[in-house]
Amino acid sequence: PVSPASIRGDISPFHGVGINRLANARARRGLPVIHMEVGQPTARAPAAALAAARLALEGDTLGYWESEALKERIAAHYGEWYGVEIDPQRVVLTAGASGALVLAFMLLCRPGDRVALARPGYPAYRNTLRALHIEPLELPCGPETRYQPTAAMVEALNPAPTALIVASPANPTGTMLDRAELESLAAVCRARGIRLISDEIYHGITYGPRAVSALETGDEAFVIESFSKYWCMPGWRLGWAVVPPAFVEPMNRVSGNVYLSVSSPAQHAALAAMDAREELAANLPVYAANRQILVEALPRLGITRWAPADGAFYLYCDVGHLTQDSLAFCHRLLADTGVALNTGFDFDAVEGGRWVRLSFAVSTDETRRAVELISGWLAGGGHERT
Amino acid sequence: PVSPASIRGDISPFHGVGINRLANARARRGLPVIHMEVGQPTARAPAAALAAARLALEGDTLGYWESEALKERIAAHYGEWYGVEIDPQRVVLTAGASGALVLAFMLLCRPGDRVALARPGYPAYRNTLRALHIEPLELPCGPETRYQPTAAMVEALNPAPTALIVASPANPTGTMLDRAELESLAAVCRARGIRLISDEIYHGITYGPRAVSALETGDEAFVIESFSKYWCMPGWRLGWAVVPPAFVEPMNRVSGNVYLSVSSPAQHAALAAMDAREELAANLPVYAANRQILVEALPRLGITRWAPADGAFYLYCDVGHLTQDSLAFCHRLLADTGVALNTGFDFDAVEGGRWVRLSFAVSTDETRRAVELISGWLAGGGHERT
Repeated sequence: PVSPASIRGDISPFHGVGINRLANARARRGLPVIHMEVGQPTARAPAAALAAARLALEGDTLGYWESEALKERIAAHYGEWYGVEIDPQRVVLTAGASGALVLAFMLLCRPGDRVALARPGYPAYRNTLRALHIEPLELPCGPETRYQPTAAMVEALNPAPTALIVASPANPTGTMLDRAELESLAAVCRARGIRLISDEIYHGITYGPRAVSALETGDEAFVIESFSKYWCMPGWRLGWAVVPPAFVEPMNRVSGNVYLSVSSPAQHAALAAMDAREELAANLPVYAANRQILVEALPRLGITRWAPADGAFYLYCDVGHLTQDSLAFCHRLLADTGVALNTGFDFDAVEGGRWVRLSFAVSTDETRRAVELISGWLAGGGHERT
Repeated sequence: PVSPASIRGDISPFHGVGINRLANARARRGLPVIHMEVGQPTARAPAAALAAARLALEGDTLGYWESEALKERIAAHYGEWYGVEIDPQRVVLTAGASGALVLAFMLLCRPGDRVALARPGYPAYRNTLRALHIEPLELPCGPETRYQPTAAMVEALNPAPTALIVASPANPTGTMLDRAELESLAAVCRARGIRLISDEIYHGITYGPRAVSALETGDEAFVIESFSKYWCMPGWRLGWAVVPPAFVEPMNRVSGNVYLSVSSPAQHAALAAMDAREELAANLPVYAANRQILVEALPRLGITRWAPADGAFYLYCDVGHLTQDSLAFCHRLLADTGVALNTGFDFDAVEGGRWVRLSFAVSTDETRRAVELISGWLAGGGHERT
């Protein structure tokens, strides 16, 4: 005697996934689609990664496996990118950043605990917390703090939450925390006994200064990373966490029970991907060019407010002058033009109705074409029919 | 201020993983190892699956993806194997059976709920439940019920638990529930409002009658399956759940947030694997031959009591006359001979000290060699040095 409505009604649907399904159905009907709704690179995994996977298909049994070589390579990566020395044993391989978040929450929190995070923010934080009966404590963040939480906001929380999630660059805004801001956040967390969880999944994709890792502020943070964004391997489902030394044993113990192991083909591919520097670096000018095209074109479309995207591959745009229902807006735009965007409702249940997120991890041709299509659609009053 | 000992001390280590690490370290030193400690086929994925994966590496972007074709193929599989018709939308793809268990527990239970399950049993049930603050309610099961729970045991539970987990064939015992037993269990669950979770991960690997699916008893059960065992794809991390119709939408909603998607390369490979009937069927005579070798040899080694392995690829053996510390026994046997077994402590915290689990999903040569090595070791009093 269960009714569908009663089953985990605390967990919201992921609208971006629904829009993606509609876009794919449209493509199957032979209609053109520009996928700006999903947060994934359209570039394929580096050639060396694909070659390593091919080799593994031939030579490896692909059983349950944990690659010590990959953990060592990831540890070395922190030296190369951030000048931080990490014991490879502090690296825990996970099924994407998603798997790392579940494990981190299981280790750090108990049901009923509260975890602070920015609104707007990545919806899976909120929903995974709720799936584990942990309360997301949303910190409303606006343009005055570049949509990021501040040490003062965290200082003001009473009682102190169990953990704070930060993301820099953030999804959906692309905004970043500079070193001083991240250090202040780490300091207030340290002082108040709040565990800092730093989602660094968009590191490497920045348009100004490089992103600062929470590992540069000390050993206390849980750092979450993934091969899905910079390394262009979203469908391979491989990520990692770097955990404080005291958490290495329990993290592996919980992970070994809850996940057994992570994808063997993906581990082979990822190890090679980490050395494909030139090929991966070549994606950056594409993202930068697309971002520039959008930043120049949007004002001509009457869209003048968006979050300052220091990194990642998103523009989070205020379309409040065009709609208060950005989900209907996205549905209509897709049906009329084939351009798929994501609704702000995924990122902000309160104000998301007047925001949309554009992913520009597409080709530059697609970016130009999307601008034309959206421009014509708005000029023709398409949004008025939503 | 966290001490390692305090972090999720309710979750036990997976001893089999630890023994596997020791065995791998031994192999890296160039010493011979026979891997009977881990529950995975040593056969590779079917050739057609490997070919499909190779093709996907060339032609697919391998982004976030859900294969509708695979869901349809899995639904058809229930027609082929069990004569049951399943709506493909009831199939939810997951990161192995492990991912399916986490989702099922998230959907069906709340913290503090109790879930009944057999002891001995697969340790990740217990530990994943604990990770989610759900109480495992162990039903001690012995030879008189073939190590399986009965309807009478479930009837006697007061108050009724939220769910009951059954596994047929079971891990570590390999014992099965026949149709009447499974129907009785389903009936008592139905009558008492207990959700039946049927782990069918060893289906297809049986030495007498085929395994009965809980789907043959009705639509109410959560059925868990995986490509890791019969389909020989353990390291690919792909499994599925078949859920009751009312749970399809919430299961996908929770899964989309908590896992985003499952491995794209694995979905391509798995679709092809499901049609590789001949190659997969050829593994069964190997398992059967290995099982026969062990069943004939063990009495000569003085080991006369084991669970009747109707299916799976394990023999769960009582070695209580040789040791009360089967972990030390396994460590010593590995160090002395290179034969890796798993301790019963993983499966039974109460009586596991006098049990070991042998996986015979190795080659027949390895099985014979393992018997020789164990025989010589016991004859030389190896176990007395543990």
